[in-house]
Amino acid sequence: MAESQTKTIRFGIIGCAQIARKVIRAISLASRATLHAIGSRSIEKAQKFAALCGLSETLVKVYGSYDQVLDDPCVDAVYVPLPTSLHLQWAILAARKKKHLLLEKPTALDVHELDRILEACQSNGVQFMDGSMWLHHPRTARMKELIFDSKLLGQVNFIHSTSTTLMPPEFFESNIRVKPDLDSLGAVGDLAWYCIGAFLWAKDYKLPSIVTALPGTIKNSAGVTLTCTASFHWEDNTVAIIHCSFLSESSMDLAVSGSNGNLHLADFIIPFREDSASFEFVSGAKYSELQIGWTAKPEELIVDSKLPQEVLMVEELAGLVEGIRDYGNSPNGKWPEISRKTQLVLDAVMKSIDLGCKPVNL
Amino acid sequence: MAESQTKTIRFGIIGCAQIARKVIRAISLASRATLHAIGSRSIEKAQKFAALCGLSETLVKVYGSYDQVLDDPCVDAVYVPLPTSLHLQWAILAARKKKHLLLEKPTALDVHELDRILEACQSNGVQFMDGSMWLHHPRTARMKELIFDSKLLGQVNFIHSTSTTLMPPEFFESNIRVKPDLDSLGAVGDLAWYCIGAFLWAKDYKLPSIVTALPGTIKNSAGVTLTCTASFHWEDNTVAIIHCSFLSESSMDLAVSGSNGNLHLADFIIPFREDSASFEFVSGAKYSELQIGWTAKPEELIVDSKLPQEVLMVEELAGLVEGIRDYGNSPNGKWPEISRKTQLVLDAVMKSIDLGCKPVNL
Repeated sequence: MAESQTKTIRFGIIGCAQIARKVIRAISLASRATLHAIGSRSIEKAQKFAALCGLSETLVKVYGSYDQVLDDPCVDAVYVPLPTSLHLQWAILAARKKKHLLLEKPTALDVHELDRILEACQSNGVQFMDGSMWLHHPRTARMKELIFDSKLLGQVNFIHSTSTTLMPPEFFESNIRVKPDLDSLGAVGDLAWYCIGAFLWAKDYKLPSIVTALPGTIKNSAGVTLTCTASFHWEDNTVAIIHCSFLSESSMDLAVSGSNGNLHLADFIIPFREDSASFEFVSGAKYSELQIGWTAKPEELIVDSKLPQEVLMVEELAGLVEGIRDYGNSPNGKWPEISRKTQLVLDAVMKSIDLGCKPVNL
Repeated sequence: MAESQTKTIRFGIIGCAQIARKVIRAISLASRATLHAIGSRSIEKAQKFAALCGLSETLVKVYGSYDQVLDDPCVDAVYVPLPTSLHLQWAILAARKKKHLLLEKPTALDVHELDRILEACQSNGVQFMDGSMWLHHPRTARMKELIFDSKLLGQVNFIHSTSTTLMPPEFFESNIRVKPDLDSLGAVGDLAWYCIGAFLWAKDYKLPSIVTALPGTIKNSAGVTLTCTASFHWEDNTVAIIHCSFLSESSMDLAVSGSNGNLHLADFIIPFREDSASFEFVSGAKYSELQIGWTAKPEELIVDSKLPQEVLMVEELAGLVEGIRDYGNSPNGKWPEISRKTQLVLDAVMKSIDLGCKPVNL
């Protein structure tokens, strides 16, 4: 028991965003992790949040500043769900304090900021990972097997992904995600992050060469993007389309169309259910004689998940941190690379929007 | 029996394309229609095709020219599955011979040609309809009810549609659909026709204002398009994306994303099965507490069809022709208008491809 407690990775959280509640639950469900501390800008806010989350102050330290969390020597890793504009400052400080980093997406305002964060992580020997939970679901691994089996999906030719969520009227007035000084990336940072991550995943992280925002971008009066559609083109002629919006009902579509097959799911970011997720896949579907039907229709493939994807994310990070802390491993370079490529493409989308939908070469 | 025979609409077919076999079957299953004659460029071709289709020459006239079909006074309506480059000539001639017209899609090489065909139909008082079968499926009508119910789907914000079909190697060498002198519109004419028709349908035939082909167009050595992706923008900020290709496995996706709900189906052009079709629909889906799932997932709505969609198409045309022939009705203007708008948008896609993906204003 004592040994197991020592081995557990102790998390601190700075900021009281709603998403932190989900991660607190994930940490509580993860066998390798415990929540050690939370911090907010005031002790009142932190205490209120701790009460909301049902945290016991005898088990979890509740601090009235972010610095106190980062200065707590018992904290191994820090989860940062702060507004994007604050990531640079606090992520770098966390890394300097030798805290491993779980940074909420979008990781930074642009790749230059992210590079400074990643440099701080590297020079301090800490692990970096962003908060893209869906990458940790076993369904994602199962889908990847099918996509990368040339006899099943074949060559990836077209990818389509959406991330939309209808926000209530008050969101557009007051939420940090539509305030230019806090989250100037708007729906691109909050939603397109997933879609970009999805097509990069489907292309095995090969970057597109041309990024083009499409007509139809909607911004609020402060200039923050609420809706955006963009296209991506690879030199091998793969095309991807993403659509993200705060103005449409929830959708999380991912469709990958290949020379031999097709994959589709409608809940790639957050599965409809926690314990079991599915996707549709079909390979070698032809039309029947006279084209009055199909020889095969998409099959629903079900992937059970013993643990929610965010728990698996915490476990993955905790495992890496354990390797570094207890076995002298180096930080894993895969996760920062995924984040960096996602941010790089996201920057190009923002640039194309700024240029009035002109194509941007990557 | 004699009266019913008189009332039946007698079809002639000019050309022996594979798709004609499907329409011959549809005519045979339609209560209001009979097949009276088929014609090809030679009597040998026509006889061979009649035998392939199991047609009895005692019941169906088999002609060695298109003209003979058009000159047969017993033919009320003509189905024209000829290569697109031949539509102008033969569709106009059919109209002048007072034959009602079921014209395979794409209707013409461009809207100027189509306008000449439609003008010929109008001045000769004959009905015009193109061969978009899916518009006649009861599923299409059911989906439209949901899309246009503002409490269900809400405002249409985004439409995504694909039409892909993997062609065998010999297709790219010899098929008329990739020969510039026969079907210069390639995949745009053959496949994007459906996707354009689908988003126009979802927008109640309001035309987009900007049409942009996207990087990634693939052409064969003769310059005929094999793969194309394009975006469409309306003044109300609706965005539509279409993707069509002869190089990807079969897909026929249609997704309509609204402010309150989402609709999706993977077989909108040809249903997986003839007797029953389905689509997925969800309205008012939110994320559950902590965003660990959804409050609602898309529901599969099943629509049975007593008759295949192509039979319903033939019945629809036959009913209109009957109204004109037997009751002095005027030709119905809805079908030519749908075709004309589809062709107009298709022309803009071709123009944008020709301009190297520059936006084209409609």
